[in-house]
Amino acid sequence: MTARVMDGRACARALAAGLADEVARLRDRGGRPGLAIVSAGSDHGAALYGRRLQRLSAEFGIGHAARPLPATATQADLLGVIAELNADPDLSGILVLRPLPPHVDESAVFRALDPAKDVEAVHPENAGLLTLGVPRFVPSTPAAVFHLLDTWLDAAGEDRADFYHRSRIVVVGRSNTVGKPAVALGCAREASVESVDVWADRTGGLGRHTRWADVLVVAAGRPGLIRAEHVTPGAIVIDVGINASTGSDGRVRTVGDVDAASVAPRAGALSPVPGGVGPVTDVWLLRSTVRAASLRPGSDRTLLEVP
Amino acid sequence: MTARVMDGRACARALAAGLADEVARLRDRGGRPGLAIVSAGSDHGAALYGRRLQRLSAEFGIGHAARPLPATATQADLLGVIAELNADPDLSGILVLRPLPPHVDESAVFRALDPAKDVEAVHPENAGLLTLGVPRFVPSTPAAVFHLLDTWLDAAGEDRADFYHRSRIVVVGRSNTVGKPAVALGCAREASVESVDVWADRTGGLGRHTRWADVLVVAAGRPGLIRAEHVTPGAIVIDVGINASTGSDGRVRTVGDVDAASVAPRAGALSPVPGGVGPVTDVWLLRSTVRAASLRPGSDRTLLEVP
Repeated sequence: MTARVMDGRACARALAAGLADEVARLRDRGGRPGLAIVSAGSDHGAALYGRRLQRLSAEFGIGHAARPLPATATQADLLGVIAELNADPDLSGILVLRPLPPHVDESAVFRALDPAKDVEAVHPENAGLLTLGVPRFVPSTPAAVFHLLDTWLDAAGEDRADFYHRSRIVVVGRSNTVGKPAVALGCAREASVESVDVWADRTGGLGRHTRWADVLVVAAGRPGLIRAEHVTPGAIVIDVGINASTGSDGRVRTVGDVDAASVAPRAGALSPVPGGVGPVTDVWLLRSTVRAASLRPGSDRTLLEVP
Repeated sequence: MTARVMDGRACARALAAGLADEVARLRDRGGRPGLAIVSAGSDHGAALYGRRLQRLSAEFGIGHAARPLPATATQADLLGVIAELNADPDLSGILVLRPLPPHVDESAVFRALDPAKDVEAVHPENAGLLTLGVPRFVPSTPAAVFHLLDTWLDAAGEDRADFYHRSRIVVVGRSNTVGKPAVALGCAREASVESVDVWADRTGGLGRHTRWADVLVVAAGRPGLIRAEHVTPGAIVIDVGINASTGSDGRVRTVGDVDAASVAPRAGALSPVPGGVGPVTDVWLLRSTVRAASLRPGSDRTLLEVP
C-alpha cells in the first residue's frame, strides 16, 4: 500500500470558493471584514506568514492592516495597539503573530483582545467555549486538520459519524494553539482521542501510543519524529509540523514532523508538508475573519462555529 | 493481588486540616469567605449535596447562603439571583446546582457568573484558563480525582513527575464538569491522556481503550460499566460515578460506575464509591471558596491554582 496524498491545496481552493461567496453576501449587507496582523520583532516565518495573509486578504476583498512593532516594543505598546484595533470598526479579526519578544507576557496580550475579534481563539473565553463544545472561533491550524480530514472522509465515501465513533485519534504535541484544540475537535466529533507529548517519547516510546491510532495528528515541531514503525498500516497521518531543514545541497526546505519517505508506504493516507494543512489554515483564518464581521458589536453570545 | 483502597475520607480530612488553617489566616486579614448555593427545582441529589455543603461550611466558619428557587423559576429569575450574588461582598463563591429546569439555558446562567466567584469553573473564561494550563479555579470533582491520586502516589513513595511522565491516563466519560477537565489536569501533569466516551463502548468495546490505562478514571454515570476484563492488572482505578441502585432487599444504595467486586482483585488500587472521590470533592469546593475570597475585587488576572 502507498498512502494516498491528502491534497491540502485542492481542499483550500474549495474552501476559498465558498469564502468568496460569503464575502460577497456580507458586503451586500454592509459588512466590513478586515484582518489586523500584529507582530513584534523580525521573525522570518512570522513575517512570511503575515505577508501571505495580506496578499490572500486582498485577493478576497477582505480589508487588512499590518501593525509590525520593533523587537523593543514594550507590553504597554502592544496593549495600546490591541486597544486601537479592538475599537476599529473596519477590522473584524485580530491575529497576533508569534513569537512575541521574551519580555512580553503573551497571555496578557491575548487576554486584551476583544473576544469577538479573536479569530485564533487565544483569549481564555474563546478557548473555554471551544473546550465546552460551543466554539465562537476555531483556531485555524487544528480547524484545518479536521476540515481536511472531513473532506477526505467525504471523498472516500465514509460516513463521518460512523468513522469518528469507531476511531481513535492520537494527537502528538500539546500546544495551546494546535494540540489541545485538536483534542477538543476530536472530542466534539465523538471519537476516542489521546493526547501525547514529548514525555511519551522519552519514557518507553511514542509507538506505544501512535501505533493504535486510526488517525495520527502530529504537531510536535520535530522533523522526522514519526517514522514507519510508529504507524499502523492503513492509518490516516496528518502532519502539522513546519520545520526548516537544510539539505546536503545547502538549500533550506520546509519539512514536517513525519518522515514521509518511510511512512508513505505504510499509511492509508498522508497529509504532506508543504501542501497539506498549511493552505487550508490560511483560508480558514480569513473565513473566521469574515464571520467575525457578522458578530453584533458588543455581543458575546453569538457562537459562530459548529466545532 | 487485591486492590488497596484509596481512602477518600482520610484524604479529605488531611485537606480539611489545611483548609481550617487557611480560613483562620484569611479571617485575620479581614477576608470574608462565603459560599452561595443556587438551585431550581427539587432534585433529591442536588438538595442532599447542597445541605451537606452548608453543614460543612458552618463547620469551617465559612459563610453560606442557599438560594433555592422553584422548578417554575424563569431564566430571568435565575439571572437576577446571580446578579445579586455577584454583588454580595460576603459571598466569595457561587455554586449553581444541577440539574436546572429544562426551560433554562444552563450555559447562559453559567456565563452570568462573575468569573472571580465561579468556583466550579463553569464560566467559559475559567474553563479556558484551565485548558490553557493556568487555572483560576479547578472544578472540584476532577480536582478531587487528581488530589486523591497525587496523595496516593506520595504515600506509595512514587515520584509524581516520573509516574505521570510514563503513565497513560484513560478518562471514560466526557462531561464538561468531570471528563473534560480531568483530561486537562492529566495533560498539566504531562501524562499521556486518552478521552473515551460511550461510543467507544458501542463500537468495539471499551476494553480496547481501558486495558491500556495505568490510571483509569471512570465518570460515565453507568453503574457496573467497568468490570475486571476492562482493567489491566495493577492499574489504579478511580470511580467517579454516583448512581442510585436498589438492591434485592429493596434498599437504595449509592454505587459507582465500577463493578468493585470484580475489579478489586485485579486493580492495584481502587477508589471506592462511596468514600472515595466524593468527600475530597466537598472539601475542595470549600477550599476554592476560601481562595476566591483572596481575589481582589474586579481582578480577572489572579490565577489561584497550580493545576
